[in-house]
Amino acid sequence: MAGDHIGVSEIGSMHVGGRTATLTGLPTKDIKFTPTSPVTRVDPNGEYEVEQMYLQYVKLYEPFRRAPYPLLMMHGGGLAGVTWETKPDGGSSWQMFFLKAGHDVYFADAMERGRASWARYPEIFTSEPIFRTKKEAWELFRIGPKYDVSPPVRDAYPGGQFPVDKFDQFMKQGVPRWVTNDAPTLAAYEAAVQKICPCVIVVHSQGSTFAYNVARKFPDKIKAIVGVEPSGALDPDKVDMAPLKVIPLLFVWGDKIRETPRWVQIQAPLKKMISVQLKQGGVADEFDLPQMGINGNSHMMMMMDRNSDQIAKLINDWLQKRGLVK
Amino acid sequence: MAGDHIGVSEIGSMHVGGRTATLTGLPTKDIKFTPTSPVTRVDPNGEYEVEQMYLQYVKLYEPFRRAPYPLLMMHGGGLAGVTWETKPDGGSSWQMFFLKAGHDVYFADAMERGRASWARYPEIFTSEPIFRTKKEAWELFRIGPKYDVSPPVRDAYPGGQFPVDKFDQFMKQGVPRWVTNDAPTLAAYEAAVQKICPCVIVVHSQGSTFAYNVARKFPDKIKAIVGVEPSGALDPDKVDMAPLKVIPLLFVWGDKIRETPRWVQIQAPLKKMISVQLKQGGVADEFDLPQMGINGNSHMMMMMDRNSDQIAKLINDWLQKRGLVK
Repeated sequence: MAGDHIGVSEIGSMHVGGRTATLTGLPTKDIKFTPTSPVTRVDPNGEYEVEQMYLQYVKLYEPFRRAPYPLLMMHGGGLAGVTWETKPDGGSSWQMFFLKAGHDVYFADAMERGRASWARYPEIFTSEPIFRTKKEAWELFRIGPKYDVSPPVRDAYPGGQFPVDKFDQFMKQGVPRWVTNDAPTLAAYEAAVQKICPCVIVVHSQGSTFAYNVARKFPDKIKAIVGVEPSGALDPDKVDMAPLKVIPLLFVWGDKIRETPRWVQIQAPLKKMISVQLKQGGVADEFDLPQMGINGNSHMMMMMDRNSDQIAKLINDWLQKRGLVK
Repeated sequence: MAGDHIGVSEIGSMHVGGRTATLTGLPTKDIKFTPTSPVTRVDPNGEYEVEQMYLQYVKLYEPFRRAPYPLLMMHGGGLAGVTWETKPDGGSSWQMFFLKAGHDVYFADAMERGRASWARYPEIFTSEPIFRTKKEAWELFRIGPKYDVSPPVRDAYPGGQFPVDKFDQFMKQGVPRWVTNDAPTLAAYEAAVQKICPCVIVVHSQGSTFAYNVARKFPDKIKAIVGVEPSGALDPDKVDMAPLKVIPLLFVWGDKIRETPRWVQIQAPLKKMISVQLKQGGVADEFDLPQMGINGNSHMMMMMDRNSDQIAKLINDWLQKRGLVK
């Protein structure tokens, strides 16, 4: 499956979804674009393209392709498509792994993140952005139980797979997020799926809300969903799960979830969704890594941990059993 | 030079440069991050990684590489590395052209743009971001002489190479910019050059300020600079141009510059810089496209225009004459 190179027919990108927003009634501003340039009057009133998302893709040269459908990789909250690229420690990550395994791959930057761009607030986006601190990332992503600035504390879990000396490098990947953009983000993902699928979705964390919802709407276009510690679920008491019956679902869980009350809370609605999927005769497989003897994987880091290839191989083998890669 | 595929040994990315910023004294907020997740108290006080930039790269498999140094492609203002990717009309652009021509390619998202991410303002970035309206882009980038919202006017230059029906699609690529970030942006580019060069720089528009300054500091690391309508110059009265003597410079100018007073103004300091480079015995070649019989290319769009391959080939031929590609 490895090999020293891949044949590529096209690397490219596109923006999908979005709309035109028009601003009026805002004051002009006099701005110096460089310290030495004259003042320019800037008028913010006018038209903007907003709420689009960005998709980057790598299409394999035919002899290198072994999967019937491309992967659509959807990142988590406060992050962008960079999640799947080179690891903070410089090692090769899931982008190259799945390309070498023969999948065409699409990588999303969800609306508001990374190359998707973002729009003025509060005029277009209706709330303020949220920036993730290092403390929140360290503790929420289960690198370790405690992080403090002053006095400095970086307690890591013993045996963790994430290279903690690369934590600051990882934090450079973080992007701001809004919590009021779920509807247009889902709309942009729907536009993406209509444009590029049928496909297999690999989704991480907060991206799962969009993945499960888009699958409910276009069940014929989604051939499987691999949830890498998904953190947003469908609520079977509120929405009809029936369309998902035909879509094989995989859930991959890292270490230290049971020991972390907030993660038990996050996981609970996913567990409920899994039981409904099983009850309706659908596929909902779970890889609980510590129960499989694979220890030390944290929430965000399965694709960045030392053993990222091991986890990717488990996923690829699961796809292979379902005929989704040769 | 064409061919139906390329051999790729690695697609990857890295963040370079930046620093840790610490915020204190800000109020906390209670936030629900996904519809099914519990309310979380968010404390914005703490540590952040800021001012880094993003570099994406494609390294060719050895038999496909024909250039001794990689290209470093630096985008212009209000844009990101997407500039070089698939065109708004869906056609292949300079990323694929130069890969097929045998260059390894690095694509920057400058600090504050795209996947480089951005930081809170006014606490870390000291000013507000600026968003470019469609009117400004249409007129400044010389798609046409006039754009208005109400009543709607989209006057395009006759014979223009940019597909005007894809203008809205192009505008989805735009990202906000700050006017107070030049120093850390240059610092991040310096970190990039130290990490990945020797290299050849291909730079567009506002990126040129950083390209010429970084070359002045590391002249042994920059083997040539291709300025695609550069809009920021070194001022020979204020800085020493001597280090640039050993670096061949190419300047590519599109159509309708002479007819546009603002562009004559923007070009003037570049012309001065060119004359100093020539006077000191350096190389400063100019491709004035309309004077070469190539009409209709606008400022931003040489890599997005219908004839983008034609312009890329001129540049590649110039690099070939200088021994920078076989």
